Amino acid sequence: MSLEFTHETLGQRVLFGSGKAGQHLAEEIRTMGASKVMLIASEAESAIAESVARDVDVALTYSDVAPHVPAEKAEKARSAAAEHGIDLLVSVGGGSTTGLAKAVALTSGLPIIAVPTTYAGSEATNVWGLTEGARKTTGIDSRVLPATVIYDADLTLSLPVELSVASGLNGLAHCVDSMWAPRADPINAALGAEGIRALNRGLPLIKQDPTGHEGREMALYGAYLSAVAFASAGSGLHHKICHVLGGTWNMPHAETHATVLPYVLAFNAPQAPEAAARIAGAFGSDDANDGLRQLREALDAPRALQDFGFKAEYIPEAVQIILAAVPESNPRKCTPENLTTLLTAALQGDNPKILSD
Amino acid sequence: MSLEFTHETLGQRVLFGSGKAGQHLAEEIRTMGASKVMLIASEAESAIAESVARDVDVALTYSDVAPHVPAEKAEKARSAAAEHGIDLLVSVGGGSTTGLAKAVALTSGLPIIAVPTTYAGSEATNVWGLTEGARKTTGIDSRVLPATVIYDADLTLSLPVELSVASGLNGLAHCVDSMWAPRADPINAALGAEGIRALNRGLPLIKQDPTGHEGREMALYGAYLSAVAFASAGSGLHHKICHVLGGTWNMPHAETHATVLPYVLAFNAPQAPEAAARIAGAFGSDDANDGLRQLREALDAPRALQDFGFKAEYIPEAVQIILAAVPESNPRKCTPENLTTLLTAALQGDNPKILSD
Repeated sequence: MSLEFTHETLGQRVLFGSGKAGQHLAEEIRTMGASKVMLIASEAESAIAESVARDVDVALTYSDVAPHVPAEKAEKARSAAAEHGIDLLVSVGGGSTTGLAKAVALTSGLPIIAVPTTYAGSEATNVWGLTEGARKTTGIDSRVLPATVIYDADLTLSLPVELSVASGLNGLAHCVDSMWAPRADPINAALGAEGIRALNRGLPLIKQDPTGHEGREMALYGAYLSAVAFASAGSGLHHKICHVLGGTWNMPHAETHATVLPYVLAFNAPQAPEAAARIAGAFGSDDANDGLRQLREALDAPRALQDFGFKAEYIPEAVQIILAAVPESNPRKCTPENLTTLLTAALQGDNPKILSD
Repeated sequence: MSLEFTHETLGQRVLFGSGKAGQHLAEEIRTMGASKVMLIASEAESAIAESVARDVDVALTYSDVAPHVPAEKAEKARSAAAEHGIDLLVSVGGGSTTGLAKAVALTSGLPIIAVPTTYAGSEATNVWGLTEGARKTTGIDSRVLPATVIYDADLTLSLPVELSVASGLNGLAHCVDSMWAPRADPINAALGAEGIRALNRGLPLIKQDPTGHEGREMALYGAYLSAVAFASAGSGLHHKICHVLGGTWNMPHAETHATVLPYVLAFNAPQAPEAAARIAGAFGSDDANDGLRQLREALDAPRALQDFGFKAEYIPEAVQIILAAVPESNPRKCTPENLTTLLTAALQGDNPKILSD
């Protein structure tokens, strides 16, 4: 088979080190030569942000952050940046905070240094999002890609174990799905595999020792790679299925991802032997499905969609919507029959192996 | 152990496809909106360049290319670009050709599309070089990083098998060395491992079937990753040793790299178990040294430095120079004794295993 792909590598500096965010931020601002810093962090993140920016001369501290970046809040933040003659945006927080910095960068072209405190991954992408009323607009623009990302696992210690694990499994799903998503290529696959390796090591450690460094570091590093792989490869079958379940039946995001993943892996793996081998290797297992099963057991991951409100009677409609959304790149041809089998198994928490036969 | 690193990802578009260079180049120029293209290719590469640029409106074809980018040739090329109001540089060729395009970009800021015809790897880095008389100056500048690289394995079919293999093994050495070089980090290691995987698959295929596509594609892809990993990680022990042998005793570049690699791997592997496991996995082997040995056997790789002019009497001086250059990051502490053992084994072509004990 011929090797053919287009891969866009996003240029970015990544500074990684526990307890180093403050020092890294001050050094990076000095290197960039910025003098008018706008520090963006929600009220809830204000203490962390203050501590991270302790050695920084902040021109404007800005906390009017809300989920999904409402357009009017973006406009207000842009005006504030302009009024204060800001030359650098520093965001400290999760996806909403990074998102607001991106909204300002989108129209101003100002550079961003992102200091993530969750596994949202937005800091590693050139995707922006804005909402007006109930309507969300998203787009891609190189101006919104943070120039530098500063990762400090100490800042994630306050993330509860359950949320860390759920969010980490969502990242893991991005990594697995990047193997067969529409823009899948071997570079994404290599980075995705590295993400699996890191999350497989980090998440059980967080579960065992919530305040330990190693688990938090590996999970944060893995979450970063999952964002890189996902941004490059796009949404594969797994994410299409979860999107349909979430969008149509309001299924909870993290639990749905965690439950569906082993079924999609078992479904696709026989038709994607190279991806399966990579995934197995990343898990340190002889078999991709076994590797995922062992991790899920260690994490007590959710097992059945019926535990989160999904019902057998929804399956026919779900199959129809999913069929229309299946990426052409998916290694196994989807049919009403085999998708019904997949969803039924996921509904009941059956052994995923039945999908590989 | 704490995870701490700085990783600079260089932003670049990579378009990969056999027989697609012409189409990809025309499309990319259209996307960029460039209208005054300077096509840089040496006389020897002119037929390939003409074919690749067949659908491009070329404002200036430029062929005054020489190895190591002589400063006066760079100056001439810069003047020619300015005279013709060039807005895009397209280089088709090996390292010298890419190097000349970089020299023009360095002072003009013009974007580059690089179409490599060898495994030189310069197209994937932000490193430039210029020579004045015998003196070579190198530097790092984001302006010289090609915006887009177009890889087409058909353009490498004229590379002789021996040269492809030697150059591929040099790339492999970059990948291995990136595991413990001064700026080694897990991202470099993941990309380096992917490069090993690709070269390990591609090089034997080139040997078996020099005009087949799969081998050429995998090797070209692997060479690209080796350049990415090397540019990011820097020179490790292997490259320091080869640099000393080449610089002081004028040992042939490719043969020296191919011969020394198994000894450095056997020397470092016991002190770098994680790197060794990654390398082994990339070779599809249980053991890193065994994986490399099998590849080298398949390729009839050179075995002993004495076959290329190195002599036992050089070893004491070599050890002294190498000791001063060993990166602090090297996992195994180098001493006059163990470096003497390493070089003696490499001189004679002894089994590298003796270095792991």
